[in-house]
Amino acid sequence: MLAFVLQEGPPSLVRNRPYPEPHHGLVRVRTLVAGICNTDLELTRGYMGFRGVLGHEFVGEALDGKFTGKRVVGGINFGCGRCEACAQGLARHCPERRVLGIVAADGALAEEFLIPEANLLEVPATVSDESAAFAEPVAAACEILEQVGAVKDRSVLVIGDGKLGPLVAQVLGSDGASVTLEGRHLEQLGWLRERDIRLASEEGRYDIVVEVTGSREGFARAIRMCRPRGTLVLKTTVGRKHEIDLTPLVINEITVVGSRCGRMQPALERLADGRVNVEPLISVRFSLVDVERAFETAAQRGVRKVLVMAY
Amino acid sequence: MLAFVLQEGPPSLVRNRPYPEPHHGLVRVRTLVAGICNTDLELTRGYMGFRGVLGHEFVGEALDGKFTGKRVVGGINFGCGRCEACAQGLARHCPERRVLGIVAADGALAEEFLIPEANLLEVPATVSDESAAFAEPVAAACEILEQVGAVKDRSVLVIGDGKLGPLVAQVLGSDGASVTLEGRHLEQLGWLRERDIRLASEEGRYDIVVEVTGSREGFARAIRMCRPRGTLVLKTTVGRKHEIDLTPLVINEITVVGSRCGRMQPALERLADGRVNVEPLISVRFSLVDVERAFETAAQRGVRKVLVMAY
Repeated sequence: MLAFVLQEGPPSLVRNRPYPEPHHGLVRVRTLVAGICNTDLELTRGYMGFRGVLGHEFVGEALDGKFTGKRVVGGINFGCGRCEACAQGLARHCPERRVLGIVAADGALAEEFLIPEANLLEVPATVSDESAAFAEPVAAACEILEQVGAVKDRSVLVIGDGKLGPLVAQVLGSDGASVTLEGRHLEQLGWLRERDIRLASEEGRYDIVVEVTGSREGFARAIRMCRPRGTLVLKTTVGRKHEIDLTPLVINEITVVGSRCGRMQPALERLADGRVNVEPLISVRFSLVDVERAFETAAQRGVRKVLVMAY
Repeated sequence: MLAFVLQEGPPSLVRNRPYPEPHHGLVRVRTLVAGICNTDLELTRGYMGFRGVLGHEFVGEALDGKFTGKRVVGGINFGCGRCEACAQGLARHCPERRVLGIVAADGALAEEFLIPEANLLEVPATVSDESAAFAEPVAAACEILEQVGAVKDRSVLVIGDGKLGPLVAQVLGSDGASVTLEGRHLEQLGWLRERDIRLASEEGRYDIVVEVTGSREGFARAIRMCRPRGTLVLKTTVGRKHEIDLTPLVINEITVVGSRCGRMQPALERLADGRVNVEPLISVRFSLVDVERAFETAAQRGVRKVLVMAY
């Protein structure tokens, strides 16, 4: 089958990858649409030392099990099912976990891939394939709500208007936060104003600052823009060391919340009822046979979501 | 009067500093005992750019106002009294604040100093002068409870057994946490075992890790020792930049809580009823005339609290 594989050197399209075989609770999913995110780009630079098929943002059609023939999205963490974290429903913190397209599990940038059936959710008919492909990053945005609690009437600054920032802004805004989004490519995001999201920030102090640039400058600015005793949410895994002065965190008693994957259900609900609109965030679509070009495009400045159509 | 003054170069004992005059809600306090902490040492290395009389850990005798003749301790932050933070009782986060012996306010390593009367609390008769001199760092330890909530039955690792670590261990332990303290000079801390505090840690993951070393190694180790979704409390203002990889914070969704000064009342209560024992933490006492030697001693490895007796 076609698969976009990371081995030594840059990732490449492979044409003779064997089709996967279902086993041990893993079912086959035929990829419909897959998204490319910054983590994928980091993986190709050595992050996590991953080797295998890339891709963890997907909507597909289940080929085995109870969802056979249905459109599905799914949690990307494969827990061991036996540890304390798994028992708490936190497979995403299982120490033995594999992660689709990130840790020891082939991903969705292929014709087919394997995933635990328990990870799958059926996609409501009202959600398009392209929207459903955003379930994973929308879930990552929703995770902030689980971690920081109610955001209604709290002032929020989202630093970074790339792939994830506009999703975070919409998730927090639709839950009642007063949200400002800042970044370098706001000109394409005017439609967010209709959702009561301010574009471009003023100097000031916010109750919650969400850092999604993954840059040193972003982190330093996030600290400056957070009010004393405020909350700074770190939403990007950059895999690099920064020169950081942590003193302001202590002096201003700022709480830094590391935030990663979230649950799929709240994401699907928001895509279904329109609280999160993803359509305008699609920069370009490529066919799976052109996945190498898709990847190059995703790495360019100002490009938001690149989708890969596998059917 | 005698005063220990930081100007250009190393701090020095000055003999002809004018006695302070009370004004604008500020009352005079005659220092009885003052402690030296790591922040004082950092100030002499340029932290905060402070110039003036050092010292912010004190017990004294009020010379003016309603506490005249009483033994007092006091909050070290002087708020403006008009801003939002001050209105919430958080003078320690007032953007215009002065801080005793740290920011634009002469400190307690002198015969007398000034402090807002509103900052003062009377010391219960059952608390000795020497114990009362620990009120400020014990308050800083109690602040953790205000920030992280109930600690009963939670596993806590305190990294750093210097001046602050044993206080943090006692405060959290007496509130029901299961506390382990690790550091390089545990041999003098055997008495903490009677307080159900384990000395020396095992590799493992803790619900809460408190970092009080202020070192890069300490921070990196704190991240490693914190369980996924656990809490890392940063308790030291080192004023230096670190090379830090923040990725593990995101992957393990760790919450980092910057923590600084606390309220005096909970500290006095714990000193009064014996929940916190500070006597064995006193390494040595100097007279105010020997404050320069006191300061040199406080900077030595393995030295815990150095007290300066001003009477």
